[in-house]
Amino acid sequence: MKLLRYGDKGKEKPGVEFEGIRFDCSKFFKDWDNEFFINDGIEKLRKVMNTETLNNIKETHRWGAPIARPGMVICVGLNYSDHVKESGFEIPTEPVIFMKPTNTVAGPFDPVIIPPGAEAVDWEIELGIVLNKNVYRLNSEEEAEEAIAGYTIIHDISERHYQLERGGQWVKGKGSPGFCPVGPYLVTKDEIENVLDLTMTLDIGEERMQDGSTANMIFKPAFIVHYISQFIALEAGDLISTGTPHGVGTGMDPKRFMKAGETTTLEIEGLGQQQQYFRAAPKT
Amino acid sequence: MKLLRYGDKGKEKPGVEFEGIRFDCSKFFKDWDNEFFINDGIEKLRKVMNTETLNNIKETHRWGAPIARPGMVICVGLNYSDHVKESGFEIPTEPVIFMKPTNTVAGPFDPVIIPPGAEAVDWEIELGIVLNKNVYRLNSEEEAEEAIAGYTIIHDISERHYQLERGGQWVKGKGSPGFCPVGPYLVTKDEIENVLDLTMTLDIGEERMQDGSTANMIFKPAFIVHYISQFIALEAGDLISTGTPHGVGTGMDPKRFMKAGETTTLEIEGLGQQQQYFRAAPKT
Repeated sequence: MKLLRYGDKGKEKPGVEFEGIRFDCSKFFKDWDNEFFINDGIEKLRKVMNTETLNNIKETHRWGAPIARPGMVICVGLNYSDHVKESGFEIPTEPVIFMKPTNTVAGPFDPVIIPPGAEAVDWEIELGIVLNKNVYRLNSEEEAEEAIAGYTIIHDISERHYQLERGGQWVKGKGSPGFCPVGPYLVTKDEIENVLDLTMTLDIGEERMQDGSTANMIFKPAFIVHYISQFIALEAGDLISTGTPHGVGTGMDPKRFMKAGETTTLEIEGLGQQQQYFRAAPKT
Repeated sequence: MKLLRYGDKGKEKPGVEFEGIRFDCSKFFKDWDNEFFINDGIEKLRKVMNTETLNNIKETHRWGAPIARPGMVICVGLNYSDHVKESGFEIPTEPVIFMKPTNTVAGPFDPVIIPPGAEAVDWEIELGIVLNKNVYRLNSEEEAEEAIAGYTIIHDISERHYQLERGGQWVKGKGSPGFCPVGPYLVTKDEIENVLDLTMTLDIGEERMQDGSTANMIFKPAFIVHYISQFIALEAGDLISTGTPHGVGTGMDPKRFMKAGETTTLEIEGLGQQQQYFRAAPKT
């Protein structure tokens, strides 16, 4: 199934896409949130789709992120060896993790505001994991696999000067409002034949910047979920981003960053496409 | 005023303390959360306290963290020069910030579970700031000052091996469940004569480990709120921890860490006292 949310920011309603058409699910479910996932919501949704008639969603409605604001957005850094090299880091021996504020989460087609004075806004396409259980200190990767509801596309936007040149830790460059477009769908894992073999591309305008495959992840999704759960109590509805392949702006010579007026298009095989128009912050 | 919350974890109700007695406020307010703060809740509470009769809270009720689960827990690291020195870092030229998962927040007297195998659980008493506005890119420290609802005590517990020896970024060592006891009170700022001159102490059993003063912060609360707001959209009810003074276990020679059966007592002048019993994780 392809879960989605639609409507104005902060007032999104739950829906699904089926045969290319979006359908409203708000008559049956409050939201795609912790409570939904933890109460076996995906199976309940499957029943509803088999037995009930759902109403179309108007095409003009905004796409929201496909899940409610999560309790946590946790990211794995440096998880593709070619990206590690372009970033000038060492290959990590265990996952590097960091957090993004949960209010960075945005819809897959929301415009991205370049913060005033920001000169190094960079792109990163990533495979996102959504959890369907509360888990802490999982015993095995098999248990971790069971805790995965499905997958989505995450654009982990970064301001590299804030991230790397403004003193310790990465959050400063990862936390601007709107720096985490998610979606368009949460695709349940039964629809993904092999999550370890999905092509992933990011274009700016017509130009291909990133052209990778989830086959090249150093640490795989089940490993990552198991690993993070050793340190942190993960919750159903949490979002985990698994790192980006080669081709970000900071790895280029000369470096290249997003300019106002440019558009990014991100696609992962089986997970759909998201697109953002970057614009300058309004003058204050 | 001294705001507090009481009751079982996840089911806390809002209350206040007045002349040493806890009173229930749940008849008038849902919780001390984003919605409360953003709707001028502190002034409304003041009116309620002046005009209504409140019921006592039974002494046996558990103390919760004094605010609802925040949207964000953001921490300033290395903000006392003597602590920077004992940690082996350089004095930062601008605040070092990092995040703790919001599900680490615990009541001020909740026991702390030492994760299985954790050998370097360290203590850190910190002054906590609670915000009463949603703010992004504040223009001045004066505006930042206005965005502060009040202050509390935060115990920023860390596992130093996880934090420093398990690959990049600090969150692994900062994110174990219960690693962020908060309270007992959110003390509104009108009750604090000078937040830049509060003694702060942390004892293990009868032994004084930390003996500092907020006078020695490198970056002050209004500066910190203004600074973080340049990068991140802060929200009312968010919690900001402002760093710890000298005297943590990792700075000792030999290093010393928490052992099961020990108790920490934390006190900041005017903000009350919190206390945690550390215990080993149950065998699984």
